[in-house]
Amino acid sequence: MPSHKNPRWDALWQNVHLAAMNGGAYGEVPDGAIAVKDGRIAWVGRRADLPADYHANLEHDAGGLWLTPGLIDCHTHIVYAGNRSDEFEARLNGVAYEEIARNGGGIVSTVRATRAASDDALFQASLPRVCTLLAEGVTTLEIKSGYGLDLESETKMLRVARRIGASLPVRVKTTFLGAHALPPEYAGQADAYIDAVCNDMLPALHELKLVDAVDAFCENIGFSPAQTECVFQAAHRHGLPVKLHAEQLSDQNGAALTAQYKGLSADHLEHLSSHGIAAMAAAGTVAVLLPGAFYFLRETKLPPIQALRDAGVPIAISTDSNPGTSPMTSLLLAMNMACTLFRMTPQEALAGATLHAARALGMADSLGSLSVGKVADFALWEIDRPGDLAYAIGSNPCRHIVNAGVQRAPLVAAASPGS
Amino acid sequence: MPSHKNPRWDALWQNVHLAAMNGGAYGEVPDGAIAVKDGRIAWVGRRADLPADYHANLEHDAGGLWLTPGLIDCHTHIVYAGNRSDEFEARLNGVAYEEIARNGGGIVSTVRATRAASDDALFQASLPRVCTLLAEGVTTLEIKSGYGLDLESETKMLRVARRIGASLPVRVKTTFLGAHALPPEYAGQADAYIDAVCNDMLPALHELKLVDAVDAFCENIGFSPAQTECVFQAAHRHGLPVKLHAEQLSDQNGAALTAQYKGLSADHLEHLSSHGIAAMAAAGTVAVLLPGAFYFLRETKLPPIQALRDAGVPIAISTDSNPGTSPMTSLLLAMNMACTLFRMTPQEALAGATLHAARALGMADSLGSLSVGKVADFALWEIDRPGDLAYAIGSNPCRHIVNAGVQRAPLVAAASPGS
Ligand SMILES: [Zn+2]
Ligand SMILES: [Zn+2]
Repeated sequence: MPSHKNPRWDALWQNVHLAAMNGGAYGEVPDGAIAVKDGRIAWVGRRADLPADYHANLEHDAGGLWLTPGLIDCHTHIVYAGNRSDEFEARLNGVAYEEIARNGGGIVSTVRATRAASDDALFQASLPRVCTLLAEGVTTLEIKSGYGLDLESETKMLRVARRIGASLPVRVKTTFLGAHALPPEYAGQADAYIDAVCNDMLPALHELKLVDAVDAFCENIGFSPAQTECVFQAAHRHGLPVKLHAEQLSDQNGAALTAQYKGLSADHLEHLSSHGIAAMAAAGTVAVLLPGAFYFLRETKLPPIQALRDAGVPIAISTDSNPGTSPMTSLLLAMNMACTLFRMTPQEALAGATLHAARALGMADSLGSLSVGKVADFALWEIDRPGDLAYAIGSNPCRHIVNAGVQRAPLVAAASPGS
Repeated sequence: MPSHKNPRWDALWQNVHLAAMNGGAYGEVPDGAIAVKDGRIAWVGRRADLPADYHANLEHDAGGLWLTPGLIDCHTHIVYAGNRSDEFEARLNGVAYEEIARNGGGIVSTVRATRAASDDALFQASLPRVCTLLAEGVTTLEIKSGYGLDLESETKMLRVARRIGASLPVRVKTTFLGAHALPPEYAGQADAYIDAVCNDMLPALHELKLVDAVDAFCENIGFSPAQTECVFQAAHRHGLPVKLHAEQLSDQNGAALTAQYKGLSADHLEHLSSHGIAAMAAAGTVAVLLPGAFYFLRETKLPPIQALRDAGVPIAISTDSNPGTSPMTSLLLAMNMACTLFRMTPQEALAGATLHAARALGMADSLGSLSVGKVADFALWEIDRPGDLAYAIGSNPCRHIVNAGVQRAPLVAAASPGS
């Protein structure tokens, strides 16, 4: 903590317990205090150590709540139209996947609905999902494209993602995921589609400043490592960082490829090899684990948590919010699943939704922990200890959210259309 | 629908889609209407079939929401003090169960905290959990005792359960679960404790009108079938219905025993035998499945869903909300888990949280479906179709709740203690 004389702050929180998360550890400060100046953390520590001569324009009595960095959901497909509950229900009633696909189900139905939606309709459809996330203390959100699969529709998705960031109290990072699936009009021509992704779509979207990072789905049922590498090369030509859906259903060596391109993160990773782990560790690539998809798909092969720990690979946790494999809008629940299903510790889960999630977005310098100089994004919780956040299932103890130093009440669910 | 001339109603909902759940089927009525008189359903059907000469004191435009029976959570241990997140965290950090027990962890810690709490403290500790459930459309809630394990503390728990029903917009049914665990002061004297449960505690609690049903935990690590039968006999002496924690970890023939005593429900049932299923079917005993505990304990043996279906045993779904094995306060999430983990259909999950849950409480005559004469407890949802309720994970589309004909907004989480 800097010891300038006579500090003048915009706001100060007292009567608060801190979980600072620097280095990924709780770093608990019972009866702490935290001060903000120009939207950034200006002072943090024990209340007893507050300088005697400080001045704060606004003093918040946090009433004994816990304060953590704002949560960061670093892997979502939350912008889409339609939903797939009909398909979920059909499957559980015994309808075969082939028949659902024949009837236009699967990802194709989301692509169709998303292409058909106007900007406004897409925004409105996504809003309740985003608000549900934000009500739980999420202050930064990654949103991927990938249900448009043509220039016009991918542009629309990313424009809506930017609009979410502009309209709601959340920082949005966009990821271009043109290489998510093969659109119907390119059936049998995956290489031609990848060419369009790399040479038509990406340059145009980058020109519009709609792309913060580039992603692909590298899998037997997705794109090959060679096609993925084309996408990565195109990203690097535009100076954009890459990340990858890697090793979810099989080992494609995607994580190592991502590391080779200094990728921000490799995501899913149930089938990650020790070779991939070593490459990620060397490159500083974050492992983003998505227990909601693991749960929803009833996977049984766990990601190699202990080997990732041993190698010092930072582990982030995210919802993977999407209509097909993780229709989840609770990052707290993803944290519980990380503990319950993956046997991570509650501290690792919270680090995975704060500091390491920030790193997966290339923002660990400015977000994800309570350290002087970082952006003042906080969540305040009515809990007894930080471990409660990953322990409780289906409750939301978030009582206040602070975005760049400004405190507000959590959003409530979408307003009722009724009386 | 009765066709009295000139009906006069207290309230009418229109511009609403109905999922009536009679017989456990959605029974969807798009563009329906439902009318209430004296707290009960007076008319339900298609809006087009409304009698021309009706009069309603209050007309609700539901704005195109879906309306279902209010949800019923029929198996909870939601009244307790303390929580067990410290133990959850210790386990995930590799501390052995034996060491946790040596340090006073496990159910004993909840018993200790619950015994030490005042009525007010116990009520306040339980309130946020109950409010979270109610905000999701729960209008009827079963609450068990079982963390007191002496007369004074069991009385306190059930008194607090009654106070919840008196203070909040929810119908509470209490269950005496004195035979939940052996209290420390009876170590090695299980029969003597069961004697106290049957001959001291139950008569006194029944005299105080605190008991709606009687339950026990029949298991290798709980009470034996013979001890369970003593409890059932005591319940019958007082004219009280029984239910049982049965076949969760091993087959104790508990479900058949419950059926022999015409029990309302047998609950958990992962290790249920075909003999037990046949007995339940013959007795009309409901199977209450608790996927939250299955999830939290990472069980792998599924309850025999298809055999229960084949035998015509009604299946209810509940949260089992408790600090040790299911710290869950979302019945919608339990419904998702019933589908995802148990492969039940969304329709079965909704029937399990409405009609069959009512039956598990002995209230199917008056609750659990939209049928004329039943109590007007409803939930109104911002969804596209009823299947959305079990499909979405971690969102709450409940927009209004109706208790005995009176509409209100869903409760929000406990008010903030801070500024
Ligand atoms: Zn994804
Ligand atoms: Zn139970």
